Amino acid sequence: MANNNLSLDTAFYALSDPTRRAVISRLLRRSAPVKELAEPFKMGLPSFLKHLRVLEESGFIVTEKIGRTRTCRVRVERLEEAENWLSEQRKLWQAATDRLAHYVEEQMPGDGTDD
Amino acid sequence: MANNNLSLDTAFYALSDPTRRAVISRLLRRSAPVKELAEPFKMGLPSFLKHLRVLEESGFIVTEKIGRTRTCRVRVERLEEAENWLSEQRKLWQAATDRLAHYVEEQMPGDGTDD
Repeated sequence: MANNNLSLDTAFYALSDPTRRAVISRLLRRSAPVKELAEPFKMGLPSFLKHLRVLEESGFIVTEKIGRTRTCRVRVERLEEAENWLSEQRKLWQAATDRLAHYVEEQMPGDGTDD
Repeated sequence: MANNNLSLDTAFYALSDPTRRAVISRLLRRSAPVKELAEPFKMGLPSFLKHLRVLEESGFIVTEKIGRTRTCRVRVERLEEAENWLSEQRKLWQAATDRLAHYVEEQMPGDGTDD
């Protein structure tokens, strides 16, 4: 549970930045070299590399160096973890609204079929 | 787009802490007064209130003071925004794997039905 919590902490933290979300979206289409990934962003390479490091440390991406090119690919499992937590929350909410609807129904006067 | 990005930044940041996630889960079951919410957490009230402030500023919860009691309720729309972003990412991934499967299929030798 503690490990799972830590894992969600780093996952959601990684997703809290627009550059990092854009990199994830880009890599979900196709793996890419760092240089190509950095191009669309209006920031220096050192700043961009910091974002890549956060993504790598949080397990969202894996990088591999072949010759002089470092290529990044996304780990879709990490997105699924975050999505699973959110969908569990939706179930809690659904259960609570179902209970409320049931309660309201019970408080309503009968529809007269017993009269 | 920029606003939407900012909104996702604060949503995912709010979710990156186990206390804040636990408060959300708790409130999805039922709205609750601050004092009752704080009870299960091993931290001082000031630290707990900081977490509530992050949740309030990010739009995850709304608090209302009636008499001497401040009650919190969750805004499920915020969870849905985060969930929607993740489900869009899943679609990107699905489209990319579909394209890959199609490509691989095209490279395969025919199954001989034309011979």
